[in-house]
Amino acid sequence: MRETSGKFRKIGILGGMGVEATLELMKRVHATTAAEDDQDYIPMFVDMNPQVPSRIAHLIEKTGPDPGPVLADMAIRLEQAGAEVLAMPCNTAHLYASEIEASVGIALLNMPKLACSEVAQGMTRGAIVGILASPATDITGLFGNFLSEFGIATAYPENEADILASIRRIKKSGPSDADIALLEREAKALAQLGAEKVIIGCSEFSLISKDIQSPVLVLDTLDVLVRAIVTFSGARAKADIRIP
Amino acid sequence: MRETSGKFRKIGILGGMGVEATLELMKRVHATTAAEDDQDYIPMFVDMNPQVPSRIAHLIEKTGPDPGPVLADMAIRLEQAGAEVLAMPCNTAHLYASEIEASVGIALLNMPKLACSEVAQGMTRGAIVGILASPATDITGLFGNFLSEFGIATAYPENEADILASIRRIKKSGPSDADIALLEREAKALAQLGAEKVIIGCSEFSLISKDIQSPVLVLDTLDVLVRAIVTFSGARAKADIRIP
Repeated sequence: MRETSGKFRKIGILGGMGVEATLELMKRVHATTAAEDDQDYIPMFVDMNPQVPSRIAHLIEKTGPDPGPVLADMAIRLEQAGAEVLAMPCNTAHLYASEIEASVGIALLNMPKLACSEVAQGMTRGAIVGILASPATDITGLFGNFLSEFGIATAYPENEADILASIRRIKKSGPSDADIALLEREAKALAQLGAEKVIIGCSEFSLISKDIQSPVLVLDTLDVLVRAIVTFSGARAKADIRIP
Repeated sequence: MRETSGKFRKIGILGGMGVEATLELMKRVHATTAAEDDQDYIPMFVDMNPQVPSRIAHLIEKTGPDPGPVLADMAIRLEQAGAEVLAMPCNTAHLYASEIEASVGIALLNMPKLACSEVAQGMTRGAIVGILASPATDITGLFGNFLSEFGIATAYPENEADILASIRRIKKSGPSDADIALLEREAKALAQLGAEKVIIGCSEFSLISKDIQSPVLVLDTLDVLVRAIVTFSGARAKADIRIP
């Protein structure tokens, strides 16, 4: 049942966490690809599954069911459908990456790991990177563990409740000016704490990453994943877009 | 491997014809759904396959390979992944609907058929509906056959070459003011020929359907498909959106 066209390698997307973030990823992949006709775009199989149990409820509130087995099932289905690599536009869900990887024979383009490698370029040991992401990624050391390999420390916003409320608000009704203002305030505060760069580490925040004014460089994890997808697929990127 | 959440029925999308039209469908389904959190959105499997052989090359130019078997394979994979119904945001590709339906045990929400039923409401026998769509749908009678069941005739733009060039331009680089101007001119011409309503019957044209000023009612086939998807899934539509 595998596609025989073989022009590009097919990407499997573990999506729906949330829906808008997944659509944003697809839109950016589309916008990044140089195309003369339909045929030049990247083939993807997208499992848009908004019913994956809440990562935050499971990890922080310790109340909800484990999303791990659901994500592993999604990965298996995507592999069966012909996907040659997996991508997941939700940083927090990468806390279940090992469960996903163990269930299939194809690789996962690990978004937070790739972003940490990219942000570390040109930074010296002992430097600090600010992280605008779910507090679940702080508690579990998702970004911290990857960055510690480069001798880089992380700083998170002090007020976790505001960050969490903003993520939930965006999932419910899309981003607003209040969310942009919050992220600008927090990026500034992190820079004052010594952060030399800031990572947008939540795909809900990626929806407004281009609107944020920051005193230091802001790296959007979703952009890192888009570049990894285009490179892996073998498609041609537009001339004005940098693929590292 | 089927999902056990069972909150909503799962939709399988035969996508990528083109990519932007498929993204537009997904965006409209998302915007139509009333949601408090991720979990309230509709689960979908999207086979974004831009490498489906050109429908126009096969049907009009008689040069390209048959897209039918590729579409049938996509349908089978979507059913295997757990889709409970199929939808395809490309009107012209519905010329292969019987091949798709014969390959699976689930139904296809037939976009042009549903749109013809909807447009016929309140119209009398002998009336004319204008069709802004690929000439392939004229030659093959795609809309004409469905509308003839209601005793309704179709009218197509005289200048097929302009319509075809516009579809190709939108697939390549997105819609522009020239495409909007063309459709406005053609909608007006169709109304002068006696068309009481106009159908937007090409999902590339759906990308600009909201921008078109027309002397008669314009029905966008993609909107019809969005409503059919929300209704089938069992999700709640936003209060201000009409689901017939």
